Amino acid sequence: MYSKLPNVGTTIFTVMSSLAIEYKAINLGQGFPDFGMSEELIGLVNEAMKNGFNQYAHMNGYRPLLEAIAEKAEDLYGAKVNPDTEITITPGGTYALYTAMTTVLHPGDEVIVFEPAYDSYIPGIELNGAKPVIIPLTFPDYKINWEEVRNHLNEKTRMIILNSPHNPTGSVLSADDLQQLRSLISNTNILVLSDEVYEHIIFDGHRHESILRYPDLLQRSFVCFSFGKNYHCTGWKLGYCIAPAEMMKEFRKVHQFNCFSCDTPKQVALATYLRNKDAYLQLGAFMQQKRDYLQQLMRQTKFEPLPSFGSFFQCYSYRNISTESENDFVQRMVKEYGVVAIPVSAFYQKPVNNQVVRFCFVKKEETLEAAVERLISFH
Amino acid sequence: MYSKLPNVGTTIFTVMSSLAIEYKAINLGQGFPDFGMSEELIGLVNEAMKNGFNQYAHMNGYRPLLEAIAEKAEDLYGAKVNPDTEITITPGGTYALYTAMTTVLHPGDEVIVFEPAYDSYIPGIELNGAKPVIIPLTFPDYKINWEEVRNHLNEKTRMIILNSPHNPTGSVLSADDLQQLRSLISNTNILVLSDEVYEHIIFDGHRHESILRYPDLLQRSFVCFSFGKNYHCTGWKLGYCIAPAEMMKEFRKVHQFNCFSCDTPKQVALATYLRNKDAYLQLGAFMQQKRDYLQQLMRQTKFEPLPSFGSFFQCYSYRNISTESENDFVQRMVKEYGVVAIPVSAFYQKPVNNQVVRFCFVKKEETLEAAVERLISFH
Ligand SMILES: CSCCC(=O)C(=O)O
Ligand SMILES: CSCCC(=O)C(=O)O
Repeated sequence: MYSKLPNVGTTIFTVMSSLAIEYKAINLGQGFPDFGMSEELIGLVNEAMKNGFNQYAHMNGYRPLLEAIAEKAEDLYGAKVNPDTEITITPGGTYALYTAMTTVLHPGDEVIVFEPAYDSYIPGIELNGAKPVIIPLTFPDYKINWEEVRNHLNEKTRMIILNSPHNPTGSVLSADDLQQLRSLISNTNILVLSDEVYEHIIFDGHRHESILRYPDLLQRSFVCFSFGKNYHCTGWKLGYCIAPAEMMKEFRKVHQFNCFSCDTPKQVALATYLRNKDAYLQLGAFMQQKRDYLQQLMRQTKFEPLPSFGSFFQCYSYRNISTESENDFVQRMVKEYGVVAIPVSAFYQKPVNNQVVRFCFVKKEETLEAAVERLISFH
Repeated sequence: MYSKLPNVGTTIFTVMSSLAIEYKAINLGQGFPDFGMSEELIGLVNEAMKNGFNQYAHMNGYRPLLEAIAEKAEDLYGAKVNPDTEITITPGGTYALYTAMTTVLHPGDEVIVFEPAYDSYIPGIELNGAKPVIIPLTFPDYKINWEEVRNHLNEKTRMIILNSPHNPTGSVLSADDLQQLRSLISNTNILVLSDEVYEHIIFDGHRHESILRYPDLLQRSFVCFSFGKNYHCTGWKLGYCIAPAEMMKEFRKVHQFNCFSCDTPKQVALATYLRNKDAYLQLGAFMQQKRDYLQQLMRQTKFEPLPSFGSFFQCYSYRNISTESENDFVQRMVKEYGVVAIPVSAFYQKPVNNQVVRFCFVKKEETLEAAVERLISFH
């Protein structure tokens, strides 16, 4: 059958999670917690189901949840977001990204993507007939070279995709980055797609430079968020997109014929739970501790940490262990040592070997300990 | 902003449900039950959440649910479906339809669509750059004129979209229809997209002619199903798609970058609940009673029923009441009589006025009674 995505295999997260099961390995690959979530939130979902909130939600989302999101956006980022016209609930952050791309990309459009890139961006661009223009982040600090961006802008450039905190590297954008972005695009029609699913998972006193802080940027942006990442329930697949009314209107045209509406009882539950600010305000510190704990344990191994300032992830170099390709290395790590990581090369289109792998540290201490135990002898 | 769907307004279901709220009207518009769902199923979801099934499910779906679906397909339709390679769980039937269209449609492809048509088909085709070729169903029995289909097939025809039981009209395909389909496409590469979300909601002894019964058709089909329709929980937004392995492989490439995976606790619950065959085998009789009850009540009004052999819906003619356009008629019905129905003309691209409106009868008896009470004086 003639494929629209001939170069796409099964996503690396699924491949590695399947290998983890096959080899009974410890899974520090795909980004999800192995610990419990809030019992209160579970109770709220159960209550919503029992109270009969089981039929279609409004296409845009459950109104009280939209309101709670608008309040949070103002509280945290000083953004004035209209709950009726500028927010749509989606079945996860990935869906929000895909729907935003489908909304605005036309055949021939160019989209600036930074590599390493979360693996859904490029297929989303290609499925819409547009062309990814790939710009590498600097190595090893994974920053944007804005001069290079400038050199790639032209009249076909339709959109720039940003992701901070960054998956897979944990780098974060600074206020200066956003200033550079502004000066590059303010006189153009270029749109921004901002993947901010790790908004709260940011470390070492860094401030999350959400697009929502910058009205002039927000007026040309789709900004995508995730509940699953914030509440330790990645399997609930719920998130949202914020965009100015005119763009959101078009986003909803696609959304209404893609998924149409989202899980009602979870929306009802989250409308209440979102008012619990501690649940997300404490998340950064909680996750930082996990990052630090893994890093401390890893001192017993030959792996060397690269900086991580946010996200569920930290990259480690294995150059003291091997010169293998990242893929060969992680395969061997699963099969011989029983630990799963993700090769950072999987986030690039062209072969690259920086000898770095991504570990997810959002795990119980005992999981991290058991994994490192196995990695100590790695050679 | 340059729109990819310039002709699309807000979906009629959302418009009418919003009007229902605004006018405190009785909502027989959008297709959803106003009564409770299984407490056992709610309990199973709660249990799954409490047992920690809150992280990403496998991209294809939770394995035991896939197995249960394969068994059901064999049981009911004699289909041999491979749970690993031929089924994918989706956030609802509409999403399954959209993803299937995105998987196979290329710019310039033609797709046969019968009108009246569920409102997501045509935008799904157009968003993928393909062209809907619209063939009207006969009136008033809403059947396919296969001779007319034959006249519209050409080398660009990529797909035919079927929907039985049919939304909005409640017509159903017969074994003879599928025989006609077979003889038309067996020597072509034309694919079938079969929307079977109302598979169990079929009346008067009719047999659901699922594509799953016909191996030669199944090998070129995407077949889409819904859990929400079967279990009185339309707001759970969960369904699935069945297709031969080669086609499903491509479907999954799109799915993995669209929504990626579906709600875990609900999948875990349904894997158990699906084994309860009574829950779906009794559904047809239960719904038939509702159709009959509304029909009996409506004898007190000037509305005349058109036949409905399945789905949540029955169309009624209002030619004894008015010659207004269907849209004017339903607007007046909401505003003056406090009852919401859907104008069947909303399921057509071009203006049409058969003076028929669609009522959803999947409501409590008291709701149907209250609605008809209001319609008795309609003039
Ligand atoms: C959407 S699946 C992948 C989870 C994730 O974000 C990651 O592991 O990078
Ligand atoms: C997906 S929303 C519309 C519900 C429905 O199928 C209908 O009312 O026709």
